[in-house]
Amino acid sequence: MATAAAGSPGALRAPLAYARAHRARFVEELKALVRFPTVGAQPRHAPDMKRCAAWLAEHLGGIGLRASVIPTSGHPLVYAEWRGAPGRPTVLLYGHYDVQPPEPLEAWTTPPFEPRVRGEHLYGRGACDDKGQLWAHVKAVECHLRGAGTLPVNVVCLLEGDEETGSAGLLEFLERRGAQLGADVAVISDMAMRAPGTPAITYAMRGALSVELEVEGPGHDLHSGVFGGAVHNPLQALCEMLARLHDARGRVAVPGFYDRVRSPDPGERAYLARTGPTDAELLRDAGAEQGWGEEGWSAYERATLRPSLSVNGITGGYAGEGVKAVIPARATAKLSFRLVPGQEPEEVDALFRRHVARITPLTVRARVHTRFGARPALIDRSHPALRAAAAACREGFGRAPVFLRSGGTIPVASAFQEKLGIPTVLLGLGLPDDGMHAPNEKFHLPNLYRGIDTSVRMLARMGREVPVHTDIRVTT
Amino acid sequence: MATAAAGSPGALRAPLAYARAHRARFVEELKALVRFPTVGAQPRHAPDMKRCAAWLAEHLGGIGLRASVIPTSGHPLVYAEWRGAPGRPTVLLYGHYDVQPPEPLEAWTTPPFEPRVRGEHLYGRGACDDKGQLWAHVKAVECHLRGAGTLPVNVVCLLEGDEETGSAGLLEFLERRGAQLGADVAVISDMAMRAPGTPAITYAMRGALSVELEVEGPGHDLHSGVFGGAVHNPLQALCEMLARLHDARGRVAVPGFYDRVRSPDPGERAYLARTGPTDAELLRDAGAEQGWGEEGWSAYERATLRPSLSVNGITGGYAGEGVKAVIPARATAKLSFRLVPGQEPEEVDALFRRHVARITPLTVRARVHTRFGARPALIDRSHPALRAAAAACREGFGRAPVFLRSGGTIPVASAFQEKLGIPTVLLGLGLPDDGMHAPNEKFHLPNLYRGIDTSVRMLARMGREVPVHTDIRVTT
Repeated sequence: MATAAAGSPGALRAPLAYARAHRARFVEELKALVRFPTVGAQPRHAPDMKRCAAWLAEHLGGIGLRASVIPTSGHPLVYAEWRGAPGRPTVLLYGHYDVQPPEPLEAWTTPPFEPRVRGEHLYGRGACDDKGQLWAHVKAVECHLRGAGTLPVNVVCLLEGDEETGSAGLLEFLERRGAQLGADVAVISDMAMRAPGTPAITYAMRGALSVELEVEGPGHDLHSGVFGGAVHNPLQALCEMLARLHDARGRVAVPGFYDRVRSPDPGERAYLARTGPTDAELLRDAGAEQGWGEEGWSAYERATLRPSLSVNGITGGYAGEGVKAVIPARATAKLSFRLVPGQEPEEVDALFRRHVARITPLTVRARVHTRFGARPALIDRSHPALRAAAAACREGFGRAPVFLRSGGTIPVASAFQEKLGIPTVLLGLGLPDDGMHAPNEKFHLPNLYRGIDTSVRMLARMGREVPVHTDIRVTT
Repeated sequence: MATAAAGSPGALRAPLAYARAHRARFVEELKALVRFPTVGAQPRHAPDMKRCAAWLAEHLGGIGLRASVIPTSGHPLVYAEWRGAPGRPTVLLYGHYDVQPPEPLEAWTTPPFEPRVRGEHLYGRGACDDKGQLWAHVKAVECHLRGAGTLPVNVVCLLEGDEETGSAGLLEFLERRGAQLGADVAVISDMAMRAPGTPAITYAMRGALSVELEVEGPGHDLHSGVFGGAVHNPLQALCEMLARLHDARGRVAVPGFYDRVRSPDPGERAYLARTGPTDAELLRDAGAEQGWGEEGWSAYERATLRPSLSVNGITGGYAGEGVKAVIPARATAKLSFRLVPGQEPEEVDALFRRHVARITPLTVRARVHTRFGARPALIDRSHPALRAAAAACREGFGRAPVFLRSGGTIPVASAFQEKLGIPTVLLGLGLPDDGMHAPNEKFHLPNLYRGIDTSVRMLARMGREVPVHTDIRVTT
């Protein structure tokens, strides 16, 4: 076989052949990875997190990267790099090895940490989110290095253990060391495709502002028989305030909330209408009979182009079985805003606090606790990195990707944009019904194989097409 | 000592002397009773409930009653009777030996089930609620039987173990066997006095209607990033509905809710204003800075004479630490109405269901689950039994009792009224700061001594003054 120059189309033959030849082993390795019960939120699994991080670093080292495990304030961060392509761009491959808690265990057909292949699917907690998806990129790196002896780009792998619990360790690392990475583009596969066979690249995510609204009344819990009717119940007052956060037409009723929202380009609305889910499709996914919200926007637009406010939980009073006659001394609501370009978390926080002051009855006291803010992210669809990824999808999946807006927030992508100044390719390899966060999570193995092919091709295209912004080569 | 006829004033000398002579032993016995950790709500204490019931039955037998332990669907019921005064009225003495959970344990100065006397107070879980209060009547019976050799009335003791958890066992017993008891009046001491030195007789309690309002939306929990703004959040919808249960003036906004409420007698309002707590006193007890509710009524009236509606708890969404971006599939509120004479639980339930149907948005589904209903109870203050109790209070405490309305509900008293057709004397022996249901619960021992004196005198007066309605003498 003639050796083609790394990055030239001919150079793909060897890595793609390697990918085909080793599929069965790749699946066995992925099963080994899924076997680690890496539930980051549960302290008893801390030793499993350490063992998994060490296994990943050793695996990446075996492929030919320089790998290490970096302690953080959270779980360990796996860092690996290959810097053998001077003058070529550096691609940051991101993934996370922590998984959601598997509970309720009784809902699983086979145990969550005993991965099983049934049909074309690999079942297990983390099989899709995110072990299977990150595996596609790790194996693509291996295909280049072992199949062709080189990579068409420089590569930095960051595999974190804190994604499901806020990414604090990774965000600290980026703050401290991000600029030294010299990355030109980031790649994240941690989301779903549009539909089986239809690859998707997400180019916009909403920002977020999470707050708690606490309402205090009497000095201690009261008997609602003895005091009901005489004092204002903080739980009732909280509900009355929450009812004033939306108007009757489903718009957020915080004055000024929409002032900075940028009007979308009519061309983009037409594209979303053509490629995105219809109202019926989105409502079917939600299991909802009816839509709700701002008039004049589709359900998909309301969930992505438009900002929103959700009540995520309420505490206060008695939540157990049966009856307890209590007027609680305090009640709290967990609220999350989703923000769109033009809106800043700090500004919305100030508007919300002003509104709360305005609607708090004189008979109770209210306090706002701000928990978390992230700016919206909009990635230029015409950036060479996104064009390279789209072309690779066409080749790997045999079909052009759909460009999606997501209503969710990926703080890591926002951080890559804000702290490193680079775009992120958000390439979903999961299926909408893969059950990320649910029992019987699975990964569709054809998406692993196509994902590896796509990643192999994408890295090659990026090597040719993505401009090098920086040439820092400080190793960590 | 000349033997006076039972029921004549002279007959009191011996029982009262016996009471004074045996005070120290009475307190030691009460400590033994408090030592049983009879937390009815906690299944691990079921054996303690059985041991305590057996101890009580044996104790009552030792005094001279015919006592037995009756199994129920809940905890055992202690039944004891003395039927040696044919032609005289039968007094039903009610108490409960189950206690509230003692948690939080770290808040107790001395362990809850190791009773200690400090100053004039006996500390321990249940010392006041209700072991200390029921003990006053048990010991009054002993003073008559052991001091004078007889009782001025027939006596039935019912000591239940399910009071803190709904009295189901006792209510079943009353349904089955109540009519056979032949009781003419009931006595309950399970509440507070107005203030130290000021005895109180409660003559009115509000009824109750406990319901759950459940709101359902999407078929499963949704990610609030992905779907926020596109579908109606059931937790938000629930809050919006709860906000429509009161109007801006603090009145219950369920149409028809006030239609049957009887206007109170102006004389009664004047009496309540003269004898009951002022707004400042009631708000101080609540630890509240401000009152709230219907205009034109004092806080005490709003909590007793007027009906009310309280939100006791809300479940739905995420209640743990930190942030979870969830739109829950369903949300539920626990609500309790308190009802006043004229209002029927079934009618209010129907009005509430009609209102819920009216205010449920088209975008969600709502269901009402009715948990519990109890009619309000109003006891004729001029009934001979109440007059007898009031006179006994004047003698036992050296001060006329205050007649109180309570905002709470005592289903047992309602059941005595409805199933047995008899009035209940609700004679509070606790102090407002005795900490019923709180850590460091205590009982003021002078109230035990005065309570015994008062009960001795009350039984004697009832023997003379309460008419005998029925002469059934079926023993159970």
